[in-house]
Amino acid sequence: MKKTSVRAKVLTGTVAAAALAAATLGAVSASAEATDTPAVAAAAVRTDAQNKNLAQSTGLTIEAATKAAQATLDAAAKAGQRVSVAVVDRDGVTRVLLKGDGAGPQSPESAVRKAFTAVSWNAPTSELAKRLAQAPNLKDIPNTLFLAGGAPVQSKGAPVAGIGVAGAPSGDLDEQFAQAGVEALTK
Amino acid sequence: MKKTSVRAKVLTGTVAAAALAAATLGAVSASAEATDTPAVAAAAVRTDAQNKNLAQSTGLTIEAATKAAQATLDAAAKAGQRVSVAVVDRDGVTRVLLKGDGAGPQSPESAVRKAFTAVSWNAPTSELAKRLAQAPNLKDIPNTLFLAGGAPVQSKGAPVAGIGVAGAPSGDLDEQFAQAGVEALTK
Amino acid sequence: MKKTSVRAKVLTGTVAAAALAAATLGAVSASAEATDTPAVAAAAVRTDAQNKNLAQSTGLTIEAATKAAQATLDAAAKAGQRVSVAVVDRDGVTRVLLKGDGAGPQSPESAVRKAFTAVSWNAPTSELAKRLAQAPNLKDIPNTLFLAGGAPVQSKGAPVAGIGVAGAPSGDLDEQFAQAGVEALTK
Amino acid sequence: MKKTSVRAKVLTGTVAAAALAAATLGAVSASAEATDTPAVAAAAVRTDAQNKNLAQSTGLTIEAATKAAQATLDAAAKAGQRVSVAVVDRDGVTRVLLKGDGAGPQSPESAVRKAFTAVSWNAPTSELAKRLAQAPNLKDIPNTLFLAGGAPVQSKGAPVAGIGVAGAPSGDLDEQFAQAGVEALTK
Amino acid sequence: MKKTSVRAKVLTGTVAAAALAAATLGAVSASAEATDTPAVAAAAVRTDAQNKNLAQSTGLTIEAATKAAQATLDAAAKAGQRVSVAVVDRDGVTRVLLKGDGAGPQSPESAVRKAFTAVSWNAPTSELAKRLAQAPNLKDIPNTLFLAGGAPVQSKGAPVAGIGVAGAPSGDLDEQFAQAGVEALTK
Amino acid sequence: MKKTSVRAKVLTGTVAAAALAAATLGAVSASAEATDTPAVAAAAVRTDAQNKNLAQSTGLTIEAATKAAQATLDAAAKAGQRVSVAVVDRDGVTRVLLKGDGAGPQSPESAVRKAFTAVSWNAPTSELAKRLAQAPNLKDIPNTLFLAGGAPVQSKGAPVAGIGVAGAPSGDLDEQFAQAGVEALTK
Amino acid sequence: MKKTSVRAKVLTGTVAAAALAAATLGAVSASAEATDTPAVAAAAVRTDAQNKNLAQSTGLTIEAATKAAQATLDAAAKAGQRVSVAVVDRDGVTRVLLKGDGAGPQSPESAVRKAFTAVSWNAPTSELAKRLAQAPNLKDIPNTLFLAGGAPVQSKGAPVAGIGVAGAPSGDLDEQFAQAGVEALTK
Amino acid sequence: MKKTSVRAKVLTGTVAAAALAAATLGAVSASAEATDTPAVAAAAVRTDAQNKNLAQSTGLTIEAATKAAQATLDAAAKAGQRVSVAVVDRDGVTRVLLKGDGAGPQSPESAVRKAFTAVSWNAPTSELAKRLAQAPNLKDIPNTLFLAGGAPVQSKGAPVAGIGVAGAPSGDLDEQFAQAGVEALTK
Repeated sequence: MKKTSVRAKVLTGTVAAAALAAATLGAVSASAEATDTPAVAAAAVRTDAQNKNLAQSTGLTIEAATKAAQATLDAAAKAGQRVSVAVVDRDGVTRVLLKGDGAGPQSPESAVRKAFTAVSWNAPTSELAKRLAQAPNLKDIPNTLFLAGGAPVQSKGAPVAGIGVAGAPSGDLDEQFAQAGVEALTK
Repeated sequence: MKKTSVRAKVLTGTVAAAALAAATLGAVSASAEATDTPAVAAAAVRTDAQNKNLAQSTGLTIEAATKAAQATLDAAAKAGQRVSVAVVDRDGVTRVLLKGDGAGPQSPESAVRKAFTAVSWNAPTSELAKRLAQAPNLKDIPNTLFLAGGAPVQSKGAPVAGIGVAGAPSGDLDEQFAQAGVEALTK
Repeated sequence: MKKTSVRAKVLTGTVAAAALAAATLGAVSASAEATDTPAVAAAAVRTDAQNKNLAQSTGLTIEAATKAAQATLDAAAKAGQRVSVAVVDRDGVTRVLLKGDGAGPQSPESAVRKAFTAVSWNAPTSELAKRLAQAPNLKDIPNTLFLAGGAPVQSKGAPVAGIGVAGAPSGDLDEQFAQAGVEALTK
Repeated sequence: MKKTSVRAKVLTGTVAAAALAAATLGAVSASAEATDTPAVAAAAVRTDAQNKNLAQSTGLTIEAATKAAQATLDAAAKAGQRVSVAVVDRDGVTRVLLKGDGAGPQSPESAVRKAFTAVSWNAPTSELAKRLAQAPNLKDIPNTLFLAGGAPVQSKGAPVAGIGVAGAPSGDLDEQFAQAGVEALTK
Repeated sequence: MKKTSVRAKVLTGTVAAAALAAATLGAVSASAEATDTPAVAAAAVRTDAQNKNLAQSTGLTIEAATKAAQATLDAAAKAGQRVSVAVVDRDGVTRVLLKGDGAGPQSPESAVRKAFTAVSWNAPTSELAKRLAQAPNLKDIPNTLFLAGGAPVQSKGAPVAGIGVAGAPSGDLDEQFAQAGVEALTK
Repeated sequence: MKKTSVRAKVLTGTVAAAALAAATLGAVSASAEATDTPAVAAAAVRTDAQNKNLAQSTGLTIEAATKAAQATLDAAAKAGQRVSVAVVDRDGVTRVLLKGDGAGPQSPESAVRKAFTAVSWNAPTSELAKRLAQAPNLKDIPNTLFLAGGAPVQSKGAPVAGIGVAGAPSGDLDEQFAQAGVEALTK
Repeated sequence: MKKTSVRAKVLTGTVAAAALAAATLGAVSASAEATDTPAVAAAAVRTDAQNKNLAQSTGLTIEAATKAAQATLDAAAKAGQRVSVAVVDRDGVTRVLLKGDGAGPQSPESAVRKAFTAVSWNAPTSELAKRLAQAPNLKDIPNTLFLAGGAPVQSKGAPVAGIGVAGAPSGDLDEQFAQAGVEALTK
Repeated sequence: MKKTSVRAKVLTGTVAAAALAAATLGAVSASAEATDTPAVAAAAVRTDAQNKNLAQSTGLTIEAATKAAQATLDAAAKAGQRVSVAVVDRDGVTRVLLKGDGAGPQSPESAVRKAFTAVSWNAPTSELAKRLAQAPNLKDIPNTLFLAGGAPVQSKGAPVAGIGVAGAPSGDLDEQFAQAGVEALTK
């Protein structure tokens, strides 16, 4: 992310994934995709200029999070799939959970965990699943799920939310819908 | 739901509460508010006409549930309050969860439990809380919360969903917002 | 169900398994086993004709679910095996749980999870276990168990329940008993 | 309980309740209702005559437990009520769980806890709830629920199972159905 | 925080408590203690000026949170008491947990819950405990503990963290130590 | 412990209870029962003389803990009662758990919680239960149980373990058996 | 139990392991190690001769279970190892738990799970771990642990208890100590 | 650890790892790395010289534990990484938890589990992860995490605490920071 647009454009996780593909195995620091940018600048948490005890962190508004979730469900509906979608913030707290009509009982929790995983490592879960070839025990970290279907939402390269989808016949489809949710935030 | 048929009318929880006020202490059977209607007719679960092994149950579509949740958040925003809202179905499964901007960390789980409680007894939680005077241990039932802020969504008198709200300075305010969500389903 | 109408026929999981064998890896959409049928038609959840806010979902009556569970235990008893059996609905909620005489302490929870898994993906768990060769992390989804012994109950191709069995010396035996339970619903 | 055999008599919880009414506050020892009988004789656990390392404990067969549960649901159906019923053994392990058609989402867990409570103290939960006046913290014991609706199944005065019911408009109704289940074991 | 700007001043919970004493029963909105200030301005979450999808939230740096926790333990040590202390952020996530030497096994979880409760309602838990007289079921909200010993950390009137202490012979002592932690942030 | 040195004497909880009766409401500091003794000296945790980073804490050997638990069961057996007994250390970790023959399913967890409560506050739970009159919310602290039946084991006035008993018809009986376990450590 | 072997010998798990080595993959039916004996006869649960509703199940007395656990700890002490040991009954309920001096914090729960696993499949966990080569997902069954260190206690071929040990440098050592516990029951 | 310094020097886990590399597969007894030292002498738990019922165990003071945690965060900050750090005692109880600024939501629990794992087996988790090649099911033990990032704190060869770190792009980095924490205790 050499140059960030003035308007703090929210990039899709797909772009991030490309950048991350060569990253060191393990958790991804927020600076991984822009090595010439200091880690501190890229973080979603910044020290408050007026009070050194305080730090500011960035997240989605509930309007934005809901808009993304609904765009996700719309994309799934167009594809004739029944899914659940979750949006979690940088702290891993669920902001939005929608269990779609006819979505399986396993889908809400799967969606939450995929979203949690994507925001934790700032990468799509399809990419993260590949890392298990080298670090198989990553998947033992509580509350994670290393299945395609999760995408990070980024601001200036740092993760500010995660979107997770579950219920389609393949994780790739799930993730396609999650990306539709991420892209809805750039419009 | 511009025009609701007589037979599929979605009543607000307020109406139900009035009907339930004289009910026997304890869980409310679906027939309690219409004693001249057979219990089976008022239930949200009906045996399938074509296959005696099957039964049909009624719930909200995700579109309806989301519409109700957003109407709830809108009502809270107009009142300057920060809340979370949950919509659960008749099985107690969460269909929608929205954690509003600035809503406290206790609010999502509280909202889910109020919604669960309202749909379980088919009454607003403000009414149910009053029953504790006679049956104080009702509140020990797992996953319930006997605080104002939950309202049932009904179809033909039977509960089909529960809406729960938490985060406002009083449970009465929470429930006012939940009722705004229920009413959004009648428009 | 002495005579099943063509349109409400309850298929055994075995038939479904054959149809699903070529399915795309991952979760199975309800339309997977009848590609010429639109997904919406095959779903167990349908929008209510009279109220667009409402949807109807199909499940087993408690009589049918109990009948299936007992047929399962009977089949196990004939084979001299001690098992537990669970029937869960499309929402993953347990409708029936029977811990057979002498069944091991691990069997009730295993039975519930197999039933949950079968209804979530609309396929026998013996089939689902094979998918792990391609998607090994599917088994990390909470509340699932990818061991033979679970079978879906279907109505018009859509899953309406899951039957799970555990406790026999092999999962294949467990699943044979679960299928006996499914078949009891077609008589 | 039309005619009970002298030697294997299964008492209904109602009878036990009468005997227990004067008992000391707190947990009830198995000998409480028959003080002239040594505690060891009345227990459901007996040392094995041939091997001092072993003890025999008494429980219901799955056939008996299922019969009791179905009798309970039948009684509820006759009264037009929708409930869930659970049968747990002396170790507190669930042997049977049936979630009736249209029973609320709170009812299965409530039923299990009432059954657990009844078998733990060998008394109907309506009686046990009264003890809270003197020992209010009894209800803080994990997995218990001090609401009417649970009844013990006894053999020679000792508890061998508990039946719990939840979902009716009052706990007294729930317990009436539970007693119908207990009585089914004497026929 | 040698010199606190007017607008970023971190108030001690004690001051907040005074302001809150007359508040409406129930959860406290962030604007409760300054009714002439719009709720939006007082909130710890603000919409991002450059991107309407984003909001900024305020929290403590780990340095500040650790400093507060250590000041708390120091105050306890001076009083000869053995306690645990927790600092949680506005989302209820634990930032710091210190189990002091000789502190009882119940103290870490108690400290976390007191901190969670204080930040959820933006008031000291000694004040919140008094509200139970009017709304006794507030204490049934998951993860809360209505015992003195928790204090909110505020920025511009909005809660940005909670400090909880447990282990001293009385909750009042616990809270005195928590307040010492809050005050350490103003130095 | 044939001859106990004056300084390492293990006091029975009964003695401690007498000393604690006048204590301030709330958690009991280890120095409460001997105000002329510095808190540091009475604590079960002491800084290591040779390495300032280290502290020594005192607990029971497994032999001692088992001896106490068996003495407890023996006392119950003599009284014709069926109980479970637990011994937990100062960190609240279970060292011994024995579920006696015929003890109810609620008894093991109750015993563990009573032991945990006794060691946390260094007082018999019969005493602690009385404190609820003034501080009713103490009982909401996780893992505690404010029912008679728990007794602390002390060394030099500081708690080094807790013994909890459950299953007898009254908590007073349970606690009598727990005290028998404590006393076994002085012989 | 029409005719019991003269000494009602409790076989060690080692013998059972040999018999089980050729068993079908999966859970082991109680008849596996004695194919000429009907499964019903070998079961630890028998229908009561006098009341068809009742069944008798066999377990260890608390004296026997404690004796076995102590023999296990003694064997570990002789080998200079620090371990925890658990004895669970056929229902998977813990009867005895001893955390030895210096045993690691992971050892008590590991011991319980090994004991649970051994009694569930009526085989030593060292044997069961080998089965994972063919059925790798067996280890996903809740509450199990497929590591050497667990041994079943049998009566007439049926499992009546499980002994689990954890904490030694290898599972083989753990299991050797568990077998010492089983053997103590034959003396 | 051939020769331990008189002053109970706290060795870094790195040294221990070297010694442990050739150890028997499985849990490591405290004597494994110094076979010429009796196990009893190397243990962190010693029988009390004055009272045979009592044993002394060694742990870190809260000052030492906090110092180590802060040194860990400092090392991470110098490397531009955002991590969480936990210090647990020999009983697996968390003494210190610090969630660093910008550390991912998965990091606190990961840090706790790595610390727990390191202190349980008295080895760095990078070494323990290698053992999975031979004993893959070790990672199924509850509360463990076999990922690099955990280091034991030792006194006289016995584990007295564990430090765990999570959040850096690789587990090796995490462990480097954990070792910095361990080393801070030797200064």
